[in-house]
Amino acid sequence: MNLDAVYSELTLKTNAKVALVVLDGLGDLATREQGYMTPLEAAKTPNLDALSKDSAQGRLIPVAPGITPGSGPGHLGLFGYDPIEFQVGRGVIEALGLGLTLNAGDVAARANFCTLDAKGIVTDRRAGRIETPVCEELCALLSKKIKKVGDAEVIIKAGKGHRFVVIFRGKGLEGPLTDADPHREGLPVPTVEPVDAKSAKAKKAAKLVAEFYKAALPIIAQKKPANGFLLRGIAHQPAIPTFEERYKLRAGCIAVYPMYKGLAQLVGMTKLEGPQTIAEQFERYVAEYDNYDYFFIHYKYTDMYGEDGNFEAKKKAIEDFDAALPILLKKMPDVLAITGDHSTPCIVKGHSWHPQPVLLHSAISGSDKLDRFTETGANRGSLGILEAKYLIRLMQANGRMFDKYGA
Amino acid sequence: MNLDAVYSELTLKTNAKVALVVLDGLGDLATREQGYMTPLEAAKTPNLDALSKDSAQGRLIPVAPGITPGSGPGHLGLFGYDPIEFQVGRGVIEALGLGLTLNAGDVAARANFCTLDAKGIVTDRRAGRIETPVCEELCALLSKKIKKVGDAEVIIKAGKGHRFVVIFRGKGLEGPLTDADPHREGLPVPTVEPVDAKSAKAKKAAKLVAEFYKAALPIIAQKKPANGFLLRGIAHQPAIPTFEERYKLRAGCIAVYPMYKGLAQLVGMTKLEGPQTIAEQFERYVAEYDNYDYFFIHYKYTDMYGEDGNFEAKKKAIEDFDAALPILLKKMPDVLAITGDHSTPCIVKGHSWHPQPVLLHSAISGSDKLDRFTETGANRGSLGILEAKYLIRLMQANGRMFDKYGA
Repeated sequence: MNLDAVYSELTLKTNAKVALVVLDGLGDLATREQGYMTPLEAAKTPNLDALSKDSAQGRLIPVAPGITPGSGPGHLGLFGYDPIEFQVGRGVIEALGLGLTLNAGDVAARANFCTLDAKGIVTDRRAGRIETPVCEELCALLSKKIKKVGDAEVIIKAGKGHRFVVIFRGKGLEGPLTDADPHREGLPVPTVEPVDAKSAKAKKAAKLVAEFYKAALPIIAQKKPANGFLLRGIAHQPAIPTFEERYKLRAGCIAVYPMYKGLAQLVGMTKLEGPQTIAEQFERYVAEYDNYDYFFIHYKYTDMYGEDGNFEAKKKAIEDFDAALPILLKKMPDVLAITGDHSTPCIVKGHSWHPQPVLLHSAISGSDKLDRFTETGANRGSLGILEAKYLIRLMQANGRMFDKYGA
Repeated sequence: MNLDAVYSELTLKTNAKVALVVLDGLGDLATREQGYMTPLEAAKTPNLDALSKDSAQGRLIPVAPGITPGSGPGHLGLFGYDPIEFQVGRGVIEALGLGLTLNAGDVAARANFCTLDAKGIVTDRRAGRIETPVCEELCALLSKKIKKVGDAEVIIKAGKGHRFVVIFRGKGLEGPLTDADPHREGLPVPTVEPVDAKSAKAKKAAKLVAEFYKAALPIIAQKKPANGFLLRGIAHQPAIPTFEERYKLRAGCIAVYPMYKGLAQLVGMTKLEGPQTIAEQFERYVAEYDNYDYFFIHYKYTDMYGEDGNFEAKKKAIEDFDAALPILLKKMPDVLAITGDHSTPCIVKGHSWHPQPVLLHSAISGSDKLDRFTETGANRGSLGILEAKYLIRLMQANGRMFDKYGA
């Protein structure tokens, strides 16, 4: 019997309320350049400090040592789904990021406009980086002219610049397919093929993609520089057991950005729309307290400023978060976890693999006797350094949601 | 090759002596209510303190993050058997707990008397919680009248209150079987079936259980409220490689309570009977020093007072243990590990998943420069936070019982 099956068998239905608060890209690095302080260490965080006294701490490895996750695997891990086992295609993530609702079995592709010469050779993979309104216009044109290919519905949505997504919604489809992208200039657009040559469903999906190309290329043939397009990360939305099935938890998502709402929806969370600021998000949590068992609250700005390499702004984002925290604390859940989905160190200016700090509070979390919540303190915590996918198991345990294992 | 096979291949036969000392349920939590001290932190432990200076420390995850083990999985882990891979049925554990000796292949069931109405419907699953002497009388009656069913010997032993165990000892039997227990009142006792429908051995065991019911029910038909019985956790004693086979160690068990002797016997340890106090247990260890390579010494009271939520008594139990420790230390083994099988925090009043602290001492354990052996200190130890099943590997390594791996 595997471990997930053991966890499932031990799972109890209780009245406990649990909340996961994600400061995106929270983790950072102490470096000489920054006075050996991380933004979390440099920030004034009186409310996190007070909480840390009665909490356990540790660090979460997002996927596996050294692996830098995108937002998809980062959040799937926090939600308790092994990001190696549950792989979600880039097309699906991109579609979710654009706010599209996907059904199980939908095949999604990341797309971008490109420039083709008279022989069909890719001369510019980004079509001269056309502006978003141009992309929107081209997508609207394609959407209007192509509603279906074969028996599958086609959904096209523009993204930023030259980027868009294409969804194929039909019966008996699956991915992954190889890319319709030579990945460099000077080559033609390759025909897509099933990655698994034995999959009849993937064969059907590949055929639909070919038909889509056949229908779409003539429509934009005169639209140079955007007279062609590339498709990548073509895969279906995998069947993922929902929170309700897996944990017996009714889960609600309070996020602002579409990508995170999409990831939450992927695992069966209800999107609680509306709030724009972290204060409003916490207010919404308080208002919905009785309606859900598990709350996922997502705060974006720590990641955004980490990507910019802006130490002061990241520190300020943490201080803003801390200032709003009392709104949540006035309706303390039985189990509260505060962490990141990965690190976004200012000196890296991007996501990284460095384990993010986590704080876990409950009546039976115990105290690690740490005065603050920081990366360096978390290294000494009782949770140790463990894979992010185990966080929800610790949250369940702290909510007394597990039966005892064996006599 | 899997990891266990690698360990086996590297295992050497040496003259090293190793001792595992288990303070049952040792781990605890620092909480505001208890002045942010665990019983281990609050206790005066001069002997453990002195030892900790020359030891390594860490914390052991009993099974997997968030999983609270019973005594069975807790000890199997410490003995180096993955508690997910080596699952022992509740019936077997219960039988061991009553001091019965089981053979590989014996099928054991947890049983309890219940009340049935004229139609065979369960009206009280605990037969009005009959007193132990009544249970003993009924078990004696059943034992006298039923020696065998089919070609299998039947062994019946009374437990506390309405509880007892039934063992089927015969050829070609195995479990697990479904429960002969509707798990609530108002329903008849279901017929047991093999969990794996393809197992001929389990089919045979199910048939024996049915015959046992047929023979036993008429005997107690007039004994209301205990005119029926339920069987649960029906499984065979699994074949577990012994300590000698797995580690090349002659192992002796110095425990007081039957459950722990039973678990030790399950992995092929010799039960060294007699001692009642921890001082007597340590004396026995000294006396048997030349006769065994590995000693398992079990101390129950830390768990017992943790279950009661009695902080002062748990603290005192640790102090009593510490006072006796010099008896063991005067015959220092080459490798000494002191730990728990799980945590039993006073505020939980039961077992928990929180990793238990471990202290490991040998000539080559190194020192973590910790002045005391505590949960908080152990978080910073060089052993880290690791699964309990690896403890014996570290003990073997410290006893120089492993060859080098690779050139």
